[in-house]
Amino acid sequence: MLLGSVEAGGTKFVCAVGNEDYHIIDKTKFPTTTPEETLQKTVDYFKKFPELKAISIASFGPIELRQNSPKYGYITNTPKPGWANTDFVGRLKKDFDVPIYWTTDVNGSAYGEYVMATLFNEKINSLVYYTIGTGVGAGAIVNGHFIGDLGHPEMGHVRLKRHPDDLDFKGICPFHGDCLEGLVAGPTFEARTGKKGQDIPLTDHVWDIMAFYVAQAAIQVTLILRPAKIVFGGGVVSEAFLKKVRAQFKELLNNYVDVGDVDKYIVMPLVKENGSATVGDFALALKEYNK
Amino acid sequence: MLLGSVEAGGTKFVCAVGNEDYHIIDKTKFPTTTPEETLQKTVDYFKKFPELKAISIASFGPIELRQNSPKYGYITNTPKPGWANTDFVGRLKKDFDVPIYWTTDVNGSAYGEYVMATLFNEKINSLVYYTIGTGVGAGAIVNGHFIGDLGHPEMGHVRLKRHPDDLDFKGICPFHGDCLEGLVAGPTFEARTGKKGQDIPLTDHVWDIMAFYVAQAAIQVTLILRPAKIVFGGGVVSEAFLKKVRAQFKELLNNYVDVGDVDKYIVMPLVKENGSATVGDFALALKEYNK
Repeated sequence: MLLGSVEAGGTKFVCAVGNEDYHIIDKTKFPTTTPEETLQKTVDYFKKFPELKAISIASFGPIELRQNSPKYGYITNTPKPGWANTDFVGRLKKDFDVPIYWTTDVNGSAYGEYVMATLFNEKINSLVYYTIGTGVGAGAIVNGHFIGDLGHPEMGHVRLKRHPDDLDFKGICPFHGDCLEGLVAGPTFEARTGKKGQDIPLTDHVWDIMAFYVAQAAIQVTLILRPAKIVFGGGVVSEAFLKKVRAQFKELLNNYVDVGDVDKYIVMPLVKENGSATVGDFALALKEYNK
Repeated sequence: MLLGSVEAGGTKFVCAVGNEDYHIIDKTKFPTTTPEETLQKTVDYFKKFPELKAISIASFGPIELRQNSPKYGYITNTPKPGWANTDFVGRLKKDFDVPIYWTTDVNGSAYGEYVMATLFNEKINSLVYYTIGTGVGAGAIVNGHFIGDLGHPEMGHVRLKRHPDDLDFKGICPFHGDCLEGLVAGPTFEARTGKKGQDIPLTDHVWDIMAFYVAQAAIQVTLILRPAKIVFGGGVVSEAFLKKVRAQFKELLNNYVDVGDVDKYIVMPLVKENGSATVGDFALALKEYNK
């Protein structure tokens, strides 16, 4: 069976076709330009696969995913030029008479990691997936389902206790200043130090400050959701950085609740090379087909 | 049909018997002393109602509610003297051969408010209930169910951005210092000002500081869970205080996500006089009976 995946990012689109074992059969990438051009390329790509049984889209946002909304399937009030109020699902439905699933990029990644964990025989019903890159966002699965009565989560914009050595930094979020994204997104390295993150060694204190904030984000979802695991992906994250995050997490949590082995609780993605969303899309497309 | 409710608090127990319309038929209160004495009083009370069909317990914690745990039904590592490792459900099962539901006090309250909202024709699938009193805790319903893979939420212990006029206050949480509970629980008034909260007029700046923190808690659950509404109960909360919370919530959220009318989103309990948990217990006992 052929299943389609669209990972719609603000910088690039990754379209892929896979099977019900979540193996990629074909894949393409192109830059995100105008909605018309980018969605036309998406349509043209999938037209090469007339046997396609279902498609799942994991999109940058904010998006409307409440099925009772007239704007269901739209990218809504994104600051990305030209993309606000784009009927993404509607455009694909014009050309494809197959079930189409629609969710956020981070929900797609969360689902991919959830499916993979299950394949690896982890007995879990919940999971949170954070991406820390140009921006910060997270998707969550609770009791096996996505969450959000009033829309999808926006976990990147919570406030945090400020690090004592970072009190002068105002943060870079245009909406909130020093929310999580404003304090730990990739561009904060340059805003704080004038240097890019990849040029700053992990021994530099700025990485401890980053870890302090990311650990607090992990504590917030731990105490609010009690997920089975928290996965961190995105360009800022490495195993060495997560070591620092785990150390601060333990110190801040102070054993207040049991999360088991923290090395297995705060983890890198099981799917390598940022492929979690594609696996998630295949699984969600299959689920939508079987519905 | 007769249904039993135990609201097991750290200071007092409230036992009640009601019907499937959630009306209270009989009710009693007694102080929380030793587990043996207090649970015996609970058993003695319900023995007066041989027609009882099911019981639900909403207990102070932490408690074990994972059904696959050998400690299911226990109050676990509570600091309350004598109560750690108490087999609460086991004690009741000795004397009552009826279905017994077991959850946290705040989950019980959350469920009571959820049921009431439904009776008032609110179309909601999710809700968060905070209590701000001697301590701070919250229960949550997501997609109609309680949450927590590794145990129940402990939302009272998240870290927050500190108020600039409150930086010298260390907080009173013995585990975390300046977590939410450490900054806004009832006893913080005396710790900050030497006066009790009820003796401090709402015009005092300390209430603005409290509202700043409570608004952040509301923002955290808004961005993480996207619930349909957030209910605040407990001794510290009043409608006048929630007005301050709503104002700070709006300023901090900066319209980032839509929560509809904030006056209907951040609210006092529908059930008056801290009765939410009793209504929740009746509904959960009925659900357990019908399972």
